[in-house]
Amino acid sequence: MAYDEFIYIAELIGVSVFAITGALAAQGKRMDTLGVVVLAIVTSLGGGTIRDITLDSYPLGWVVNTTYLWTAIWSAVAAFLLCRYFQYPRRLMLILDAAGLALFAILGAEKALMLDASPTIVVMMACITGAAGGMIRDVLTGQIPLILHRDGELYATCAMLGAIFYVAFYGLIDQQILAVISMLIIFATRLAAVFGDLNLPEFVVA
Amino acid sequence: MAYDEFIYIAELIGVSVFAITGALAAQGKRMDTLGVVVLAIVTSLGGGTIRDITLDSYPLGWVVNTTYLWTAIWSAVAAFLLCRYFQYPRRLMLILDAAGLALFAILGAEKALMLDASPTIVVMMACITGAAGGMIRDVLTGQIPLILHRDGELYATCAMLGAIFYVAFYGLIDQQILAVISMLIIFATRLAAVFGDLNLPEFVVA
Amino acid sequence: MAYDEFIYIAELIGVSVFAITGALAAQGKRMDTLGVVVLAIVTSLGGGTIRDITLDSYPLGWVVNTTYLWTAIWSAVAAFLLCRYFQYPRRLMLILDAAGLALFAILGAEKALMLDASPTIVVMMACITGAAGGMIRDVLTGQIPLILHRDGELYATCAMLGAIFYVAFYGLIDQQILAVISMLIIFATRLAAVFGDLNLPEFVVA
Repeated sequence: MAYDEFIYIAELIGVSVFAITGALAAQGKRMDTLGVVVLAIVTSLGGGTIRDITLDSYPLGWVVNTTYLWTAIWSAVAAFLLCRYFQYPRRLMLILDAAGLALFAILGAEKALMLDASPTIVVMMACITGAAGGMIRDVLTGQIPLILHRDGELYATCAMLGAIFYVAFYGLIDQQILAVISMLIIFATRLAAVFGDLNLPEFVVA
Repeated sequence: MAYDEFIYIAELIGVSVFAITGALAAQGKRMDTLGVVVLAIVTSLGGGTIRDITLDSYPLGWVVNTTYLWTAIWSAVAAFLLCRYFQYPRRLMLILDAAGLALFAILGAEKALMLDASPTIVVMMACITGAAGGMIRDVLTGQIPLILHRDGELYATCAMLGAIFYVAFYGLIDQQILAVISMLIIFATRLAAVFGDLNLPEFVVA
Repeated sequence: MAYDEFIYIAELIGVSVFAITGALAAQGKRMDTLGVVVLAIVTSLGGGTIRDITLDSYPLGWVVNTTYLWTAIWSAVAAFLLCRYFQYPRRLMLILDAAGLALFAILGAEKALMLDASPTIVVMMACITGAAGGMIRDVLTGQIPLILHRDGELYATCAMLGAIFYVAFYGLIDQQILAVISMLIIFATRLAAVFGDLNLPEFVVA
């Protein structure tokens, strides 16, 4: 498989997974079908959009290729329909969301590197691509963004770890292998954080 | 009347109407004069700004021509002053807001078409232009955006219907007539939704 | 000291001060280290980022020069550590925040003038640069932005006053002296508002 195809497929899987988490965030909030689709689009495309706007990388991917948008829409509609008949699979969703984070963070780092950003910015863009969509989703549903929270279980921290690894070994290993290893680091640390209950120190005042 | 003038007048009416709805959202939130003006500006210029930034259409209209900004400011100040002495006209506001949605959605579609966007993006930009300003207003006043809600009464759905009609017949009918018909479709369906209590299915979980 | 150096140092002080206020907003919200850093970055770089994106002024300062980012990060970490051992100095923070507002508003006006913006836009960009970061901070921590509120004590109004003075005398006085006077106007009126309890009229309905 060519590297371009690998990236494209990873992007679409990430979009689909994040769209589903966006759609599921609508439950219990009295949202209608369109509200669910809007949340799905914002969650799945928001991070990459903020990254591209801050890096002045135009045109935006989803404006040129509407496959991203339709992937988000159909994923949300499927989640909307299935959740009427099946129990919400919380454990499965956490695993899928960890996969989405891993894919988006490394794709974001890759994009920033291609635009000749410095290592600091590459790591930051990995976090933005992976986590900003979820932040907007949380704000729109009236919640303090999960990633700022102790309960967020190292969400962006995992993305940061993988991105630092990716930047450190960029150009030294085959690019596709490096991307896969970095994604696995994020996926594994995130699952360890969620199911093993790791945490960063909380902000307390004297 | 030339088509350009028609567009410009429609824009200014839309800005004024949305600025008033933004200003009125401040009531009961202990906001001062400037807070009211900020909400009015964000509500009336927010949607078009997000559309132009995602489409890389610079310079932004309100940066070049400050008439938009002043229209928003004076509309907000007028609403601020009048509401000290008169009863808040809820029914009139819903009608004005439906007019603003109709104008902004079709103007947004028109702008996207001029930038050679694909039909999917044109419809999406119509929804963003019509509804994103109100979403920011709701977030800033600490509420879950109305358009995501069942109580939003098909807000963005009406914009979508009109935009689909506009795209479908674009180039087949005289542009100005098509724009007016599309706006009337949005205005009429929105009023039917508000006063007739139509709704999309709600998101429920098994 | 050259004018460029003066601007650069003022920027870094502003970033540091706003990063600290962002970090302190995290207290009592169960945020972890990274959440604190994210809030600090958003508060200190958010206003300038929105200004530059709306004015199409690329590349963004913090993307090119990561000193801004690291200043925000280290300021937040220092605030995070110090607040574990010392009492939160509310009065000092209000003074520092007034200084940050004064610096950022006039730097924002300066940037807009360099890009040949009209006076209205210059004043607006001063307010955005000074206040938008704090607005995002408030939204992310689940609060109605302080600047919209009566309790905001003329926050953006002070920025506006200073910016109007700056625009009015631009080109008539030595630029560096004008910048310092304008900053002092904002600093003084803001402190007067905070400690003297000035207010704009509240929005009330009949």
